[in-house]
Amino acid sequence: MSSADLAATPAATSAATPAYAALTQRYRQLHHLEHLQSLAHWDQASHMPAGAAPARAQAMAELAGLMHRLRTEPAVQGQLAQAGQELLSEAERANLREIERDWRLANALPDALVQRREIATAACEQAWRTQRPANDWAGFLPNLRAVVAVARDEAELLSQLSGERPYDCLLDRFEPGMRCAQLDPLFADLRQWLPDLIQRVLAHQRATPLLPLQGPYPLDAQRALCERVMQLLQFNFDGGRLDISTHPFCGGAPEDVRLTNRYDLHDCLNGLLGAVHETGHGRYEQGRPRDWLGQPLSLARSMGIHESQSLAFEMQLGRHPGFVALLVPLLQQAFGARPEFEAENLRRLLTRVQPGLIRVDADEVSYAPHVMLRYEIERALIEREIEADDIPALWDAGMAELLGLDTRGNHRDGAMQDVHWPAGMFGYFPCYTLGAMYAAQWFAALRRAVPDLDARIALGDLTPVFDWLATHIWQPASRWPTDELALRASGEPLNPAHYRAHLEQRYLGLA
Amino acid sequence: MSSADLAATPAATSAATPAYAALTQRYRQLHHLEHLQSLAHWDQASHMPAGAAPARAQAMAELAGLMHRLRTEPAVQGQLAQAGQELLSEAERANLREIERDWRLANALPDALVQRREIATAACEQAWRTQRPANDWAGFLPNLRAVVAVARDEAELLSQLSGERPYDCLLDRFEPGMRCAQLDPLFADLRQWLPDLIQRVLAHQRATPLLPLQGPYPLDAQRALCERVMQLLQFNFDGGRLDISTHPFCGGAPEDVRLTNRYDLHDCLNGLLGAVHETGHGRYEQGRPRDWLGQPLSLARSMGIHESQSLAFEMQLGRHPGFVALLVPLLQQAFGARPEFEAENLRRLLTRVQPGLIRVDADEVSYAPHVMLRYEIERALIEREIEADDIPALWDAGMAELLGLDTRGNHRDGAMQDVHWPAGMFGYFPCYTLGAMYAAQWFAALRRAVPDLDARIALGDLTPVFDWLATHIWQPASRWPTDELALRASGEPLNPAHYRAHLEQRYLGLA
Repeated sequence: MSSADLAATPAATSAATPAYAALTQRYRQLHHLEHLQSLAHWDQASHMPAGAAPARAQAMAELAGLMHRLRTEPAVQGQLAQAGQELLSEAERANLREIERDWRLANALPDALVQRREIATAACEQAWRTQRPANDWAGFLPNLRAVVAVARDEAELLSQLSGERPYDCLLDRFEPGMRCAQLDPLFADLRQWLPDLIQRVLAHQRATPLLPLQGPYPLDAQRALCERVMQLLQFNFDGGRLDISTHPFCGGAPEDVRLTNRYDLHDCLNGLLGAVHETGHGRYEQGRPRDWLGQPLSLARSMGIHESQSLAFEMQLGRHPGFVALLVPLLQQAFGARPEFEAENLRRLLTRVQPGLIRVDADEVSYAPHVMLRYEIERALIEREIEADDIPALWDAGMAELLGLDTRGNHRDGAMQDVHWPAGMFGYFPCYTLGAMYAAQWFAALRRAVPDLDARIALGDLTPVFDWLATHIWQPASRWPTDELALRASGEPLNPAHYRAHLEQRYLGLA
Repeated sequence: MSSADLAATPAATSAATPAYAALTQRYRQLHHLEHLQSLAHWDQASHMPAGAAPARAQAMAELAGLMHRLRTEPAVQGQLAQAGQELLSEAERANLREIERDWRLANALPDALVQRREIATAACEQAWRTQRPANDWAGFLPNLRAVVAVARDEAELLSQLSGERPYDCLLDRFEPGMRCAQLDPLFADLRQWLPDLIQRVLAHQRATPLLPLQGPYPLDAQRALCERVMQLLQFNFDGGRLDISTHPFCGGAPEDVRLTNRYDLHDCLNGLLGAVHETGHGRYEQGRPRDWLGQPLSLARSMGIHESQSLAFEMQLGRHPGFVALLVPLLQQAFGARPEFEAENLRRLLTRVQPGLIRVDADEVSYAPHVMLRYEIERALIEREIEADDIPALWDAGMAELLGLDTRGNHRDGAMQDVHWPAGMFGYFPCYTLGAMYAAQWFAALRRAVPDLDARIALGDLTPVFDWLATHIWQPASRWPTDELALRASGEPLNPAHYRAHLEQRYLGLA
């Protein structure tokens, strides 16, 4: 595929393909409305005064209702059938495939079930905000049971429609094409070698001296440093910006990417690497094919692939020794010359492994066990093998086995730590580790394509990284199924061996 | 009318009044969409990166189109007729009157004319942004001719529908019920005494020593000061915020009021009084009747009444000697104890009269002549008495006569200084001076209702001011026509004598 091929605008053939043209016109309209929806989301998390929450919720529900009606208008079904008979280019056929998928998802669930889900998740998430800090598992449990009950019904309904396993149907919403049949051996393999690797890394690092961070690091300087690093990462500030929110995220529209970050006065690296992570998401958004904007073909391929971009930036590049050396003068410029910013010490700070209770604070090596445990529990929950009541015991056993941690009685920093389950987002967690695996796979392919990659990164020449990602991930967007994307990009579908090799190389020095 | 009466929710009678209920439901929907529209406007002016402009414009056009379709759906006409037969409360009848007005405005113009207007104003405004700094009247003129031509067509069409004078039809969009027949004598009267008053004030002030501002005043401190003063003015920060933009404005939604301001390093009073001005708009928005939000009854009565709130805050209260004394400790806290902030000097700084070329920079006394001149010219333009080509000569003559200024050849700071004409907003300018007159009338009524008002303001007790405005202006909103609102609030319709008395009292010490 040449980029000229992708650049062909959907409107070019509209006279000969009226049904396809009508569909693309509808998706352009949805794209414009999504712009406003994303803006309102971003504002809600970064600027909105607390008292405006009810009005904002009503406004967003109104828009969501309009968009749902646009997606489910009866005319669409006929247009889809007719467009399938029209003479379309290969890219247009791919776009039609993605439109069909979007239509199927929007139309699959009866309104009553969608409403039940909204009510159950809103109640659970709302109460969770105070129950979590109070470690109130008993209060949380009935709400979670209700959310699980709706998710089971949804999964079963989708399963009847598609013939897939119930959990696979939920997973497919976030990671199209991924199935338990592929995930199970993937995570079983991880379970074989990762806990042992963690212990070896810990033993290895115990012998390595480390100068800890010596804050405070003024917040304004942290923020300016992040913008400087985002420039180094070639984030386009003419089509995006950086703000502050409680939980960092990448939002907005592809033409107006809104990143947010948070800053810890005593840990300038947390905010810095957070910005690098979100910039990975942001550049994917900014790099999606412009001539197809609004069309499902231009959407990010999956949550796992999106995470592979943020982790390519944060882990593969952001903790690369050559890149870490580039950060030294920027840190010194921001906070003065301090001994903790010496290049080798900075690299050690950024690759320190320390298993902990909180997933979002986990290091690169001890992150996957959090996901593995979540996956095992949520799959069993959805497929009625366990009940929500069983979670604490499974959590304690899993954390002890995988990370050697005692979590008994600490629900707050256990199963209650994340919003995903209260929000009914079963099937999301695996994407984080799939993203880490894909990121390692991309960098392995990149090293084959650019043999002097490490030297060029050390010289501050990051262009080969961005060019490779733009060509192989950003521009193709959703043109191919994920397996085909991976195959075209790296010569093979998902192969977790690159992830293991990367961890062993970086954390144990094994080539 | 009691506040309990206004609090009756429109939904209460829906079973008995199905057509009225359907209309109010439609306006609730529009209210939710307007929330997102206003947010996108605010963001565009305060946060949006420049490169996002085309995508934002498309998104906003999409939403505007949806909202226009909601306003003009054929079903509405029948519902309006039927609702007129339903048994409605007095407030509901007032709401229906305002819904009818909104419907009439949305349906009056054929799509082709609306499109012509969009194209002409977009082209004129876009080019104006560079033509104005270049003083390029010759380049501006053909675009302005096109804008005037569309505005004339629009005015004539509306005139045929309503039987009103063409200019009155444009004026009525911003100031419902106001007519040239009322404005002409108002401005003719001003012309009799105002230029003379300005000269007398200038003579009076020449004898008064004045210590000028001695900046720089750090911008962060200016911003913090503005938020402190907004708290003093009881702006509800739980339902609003203050940001920065090139041109200050009050935007957002009533539940989420977004004020913006700008700061001049060497003039801390400009930003401070700008914030006081916008807070007046903002409190009107926050004070509109909550139980009627979304219904046209709850909308601000007119642009003139809106301006009467910002000017009640900025001019009547903001330059009141008692209020000025309250500012002294706040200024000292922000910038240190400085001689220019001594109370009497501060009052003189804030009431200094100096006729100048720029309307938005004009002081309280020399502001109206800018509006009088704009009104004369734009009314004559719309009613085909003059052509756009005649503007510079009329401008020069008017500014010489009214303010004693030589404007020849300076188009940039002459007729080209404001966006209103390039944007096709003929009929808007008079609202500024109507607002100043109403503001003086409100304070005269307030002084009759609260005889010790001046003493209470000096003691920092501003509650009587806010209570009076809330009861008489904010809560009634659009329940009555403007004349009736003024009559109920102050015992008389618009009476410019209060404005004259205010200026003479404050600037010449005449009781």
